[in-house]
Amino acid sequence: SRSINLAVIPGDGIGQEVVAQGLKVLSAVLPQDVKLETKAYDLGAQRWHRTGETLPDAELESLKNHDAILLGAIGDPSVPSGVLERGLLLKLRFAFDHYVNLRPSKLFPNTTTPLAGRPDIDFVVVREGTEGPYTGNGGSLRTGTPAEVATEVSLNTAYGVERVVRDAFARAAARPRKKLTLVHKNNVLVYAGHLWKNIFDRVAQEYPDVTTDYLHVDAATIFFVTQPERFDVIVTDNLFGDILTDLAAAVSGGIGLAASGNINPTGDFPSMFEPVHGSAPDIAGTGKADPTATILSVALLLRHLGFEPEAVRIEEAVSADLAGRDGTFRTTDEIGDTLAVRVAG
Amino acid sequence: SRSINLAVIPGDGIGQEVVAQGLKVLSAVLPQDVKLETKAYDLGAQRWHRTGETLPDAELESLKNHDAILLGAIGDPSVPSGVLERGLLLKLRFAFDHYVNLRPSKLFPNTTTPLAGRPDIDFVVVREGTEGPYTGNGGSLRTGTPAEVATEVSLNTAYGVERVVRDAFARAAARPRKKLTLVHKNNVLVYAGHLWKNIFDRVAQEYPDVTTDYLHVDAATIFFVTQPERFDVIVTDNLFGDILTDLAAAVSGGIGLAASGNINPTGDFPSMFEPVHGSAPDIAGTGKADPTATILSVALLLRHLGFEPEAVRIEEAVSADLAGRDGTFRTTDEIGDTLAVRVAG
Ligand SMILES: CC(C)[C@H](C(=O)O)[C@@H](O)C(=O)O
Ligand SMILES: CC(C)[C@H](C(=O)O)[C@@H](O)C(=O)O
Repeated sequence: SRSINLAVIPGDGIGQEVVAQGLKVLSAVLPQDVKLETKAYDLGAQRWHRTGETLPDAELESLKNHDAILLGAIGDPSVPSGVLERGLLLKLRFAFDHYVNLRPSKLFPNTTTPLAGRPDIDFVVVREGTEGPYTGNGGSLRTGTPAEVATEVSLNTAYGVERVVRDAFARAAARPRKKLTLVHKNNVLVYAGHLWKNIFDRVAQEYPDVTTDYLHVDAATIFFVTQPERFDVIVTDNLFGDILTDLAAAVSGGIGLAASGNINPTGDFPSMFEPVHGSAPDIAGTGKADPTATILSVALLLRHLGFEPEAVRIEEAVSADLAGRDGTFRTTDEIGDTLAVRVAG
Repeated sequence: SRSINLAVIPGDGIGQEVVAQGLKVLSAVLPQDVKLETKAYDLGAQRWHRTGETLPDAELESLKNHDAILLGAIGDPSVPSGVLERGLLLKLRFAFDHYVNLRPSKLFPNTTTPLAGRPDIDFVVVREGTEGPYTGNGGSLRTGTPAEVATEVSLNTAYGVERVVRDAFARAAARPRKKLTLVHKNNVLVYAGHLWKNIFDRVAQEYPDVTTDYLHVDAATIFFVTQPERFDVIVTDNLFGDILTDLAAAVSGGIGLAASGNINPTGDFPSMFEPVHGSAPDIAGTGKADPTATILSVALLLRHLGFEPEAVRIEEAVSADLAGRDGTFRTTDEIGDTLAVRVAG
């Protein structure tokens, strides 16, 4: 009989609240014969304040034993910028080799977009997750003096680029439109840019059915707002992917609906699923947080673990729930309840 | 008597066409007693194809003798990516220490925006122009093999950050709303991010009247489309500024209206003014290029050289021209003619 052994990292702020709804919907959608075990990990701002720890080795080891990780949100203004991001969130992505950071964008009916004319938006960004300017490879000299020099090194390897580009081609080939756009800035970042472009062009030869395209990152932001329907699958580096996926979320229903998966496709390590939004301390505890992004992340989690019908059930429930929204306020909990009922039904 | 000794680099594609209109309007707006001398420099794709040169030392030296430079657009698909960008455009920005890359965004009445509800957009991005990931400080090892490693180094100095931050504070202090937003990614790029943030916070103490704000670059893209009216002056690094200003152009009338100045505030070297758009080879020669971005760049040029009333005349003429547009097609030349008549009148 099947089972899911899930690690849960609620984290900070609204992270706790949205994760509770994600688990509620997960329990409701799973068939009776699937055994769901969850273990909560107390990581984030409070833990750091209490113990000074971000992610101790013992917990990192323990996390490896799970089939997947569900994460709420990490970060609080009381913690110096970078401490939890580098010491916990990025540490997990790097330690578990989450080289595919998958971020779908879809403008569901009856949701808000700042764009006039409501374009058809349905694309997925495959953001590289383990390289680029995110490797922590930088430093500063004469820190705090007028002679300070600070560096940040973007590291890019053929090994790292090829595996994520291959993943993106496979995803594009499996979609009806079969289109893949590489986004980089190869007219300025010529070394990294040429590495990406050369590998992209070489792998493209193995996918004659996939239409390919290249855009500089600055031009890509223009098309995100003027012509988002032109995109199907996008593959890009860690930093460009970070920037583009927030913009993508903003134009396709808002950051409250944007799901993501930090995926290790080899299965060597557990993949991790999380909403794109942050911990939003300003609304924590008010019941105003929309748990939909987390619930859609649970769908990605289920798909990754082979529960495709259950993933689809969640996505259809979300779509129906959004279509029925009439502006009446519902709490985090109420939205979770509604979706739990829908997926069970 | 006053004079302007202007270097003109028309460049590639529509660059030639829009620069001609910029010069037309410049001649028309200048008072009789101002002597305008121009010298054209044949630089860009054609020159490179003919001679293999991007920017020879003799021409770089000669350019130093001018009061300012007006540039059209650089780049052509026939030239490998990076050759002209690094060898000509960025070479000029770096050689002439253009550390303030000034890019105003204003949504003029009767212009198109992809944003529903036409928010009030009137902000200016002060993009650092001589540091960050643009320094060409990178390389590749085992190039073209499966073991390739490519790096790009972002270089940031207290010297370079402080001067551009000071410039941005002075600009914010001179505007009615007096608000300055720092955009970076200091939760991931901790070394460069902390350098920027520390200097920003220190200089802020000298400007108690200026309201300050900090946003991560990913969050900033969200506000560009959901709440662009929140911005007044933005200061940011070279790469983030590149990305954000294309997005800013897209939401505020389109890339056909976005002007920029590459400014050396010390006056040690000539500043350079150029539209944000590229050479658009697909429409070159068709008369479809809108010269307005170049003409607005001429206004920035005039303001920089102390011709404030003339700069304002151009901006008012553009505003009136845009307000009167009814969708009837006008050629590049016709738009230039209309504006030349307006500023002279
Ligand atoms: C919190 C931060 C480190 C993170 C990132 O930059 O990847 C976030 O912005 C995201 O997109 O998941
Ligand atoms: C052409 C390119 C080198 C340039 C840049 O990246 O600065 C352009 O995009 C710009 O914004 O002026």
